[in-house]
Amino acid sequence: MTESRPQLPEALVREVKFDSRGLVPAIAQQHDTGEILMMAWMSAESLAETLETGQVCYWSRSRQALWRKGETSGHVQKLMELRVDCDGDTLLLLVEQTGPACHTGAHNCFFRSWSDGKLEQAESE
Amino acid sequence: MTESRPQLPEALVREVKFDSRGLVPAIAQQHDTGEILMMAWMSAESLAETLETGQVCYWSRSRQALWRKGETSGHVQKLMELRVDCDGDTLLLLVEQTGPACHTGAHNCFFRSWSDGKLEQAESE
Repeated sequence: MTESRPQLPEALVREVKFDSRGLVPAIAQQHDTGEILMMAWMSAESLAETLETGQVCYWSRSRQALWRKGETSGHVQKLMELRVDCDGDTLLLLVEQTGPACHTGAHNCFFRSWSDGKLEQAESE
Repeated sequence: MTESRPQLPEALVREVKFDSRGLVPAIAQQHDTGEILMMAWMSAESLAETLETGQVCYWSRSRQALWRKGETSGHVQKLMELRVDCDGDTLLLLVEQTGPACHTGAHNCFFRSWSDGKLEQAESE
C-alpha cells in the first residue's frame, strides 16, 4: 500500500501556471501587518500539502525536496489565505509567521536596502 | 557613437543573483500601505535603468524586451526604495504606484482568493 498524497484541487491545476521546472514563486506576507516575509517556490505537491495541512510547505530547489517551513526551527507559517495573481504565475500566501521568517534570524528576508551605492541594514522591519 | 546605457553598480552585480536567463524576480509593494501590487522580472539592464531613472523598468519575458512599466498606460511606479533578500535572489521594490498596477485594471494583481474550493474575488484590495 502506498500512502495517499494530497492532490491539488482541479481549479488550481487549471489556474496556476507552474514553470518548466514545475515550480511557481510564492510570496509570503504577514496577514495582519502587510510585512513581506520571504519569497520561495512551490511545486504542485507542496501547494497541495499546504492547503491540506494549513502549514506552508515550499519546494527547496537546493535540496530538490519538500521544504516544510519551520519543521526544524519551529518557525512555521500558518496559511491564512491563498491568492493567485492575474495570470496565475505567482502566488501570494497570507500567513501567520511564528518567530523569524529568515534563516539568518531576521524577521524577514528583505533586510538589506540599497542606499548611497551600497547595501545597508534596512531601517524598518 | 553608441548611446551609453546605465550600468548596474558593482555592489549589486556582486550581490544580486540573476538566474540562468539573467533574470531575478522583483516584488512591487506600495511603500506606504504595504499592499503587494505585482511580481515581475528584472534583468541587470532593467534594474540599472530603474536605479538611474527612479521609474521601475522590468524585463518582459513574453516580449523579450525592456518593459518600462506604465510607458503606455501611464500607470508608472516610482521607486522609493530597493531591497535585496538574504541570499540575493529576490528583489523587493517599494514603490509609489500611479493608477492600477494590474493590466486588468485591478489595483493589484492578487485579486483572486482561494475559498471553498474555488478562486473568488478577494475581499480587500
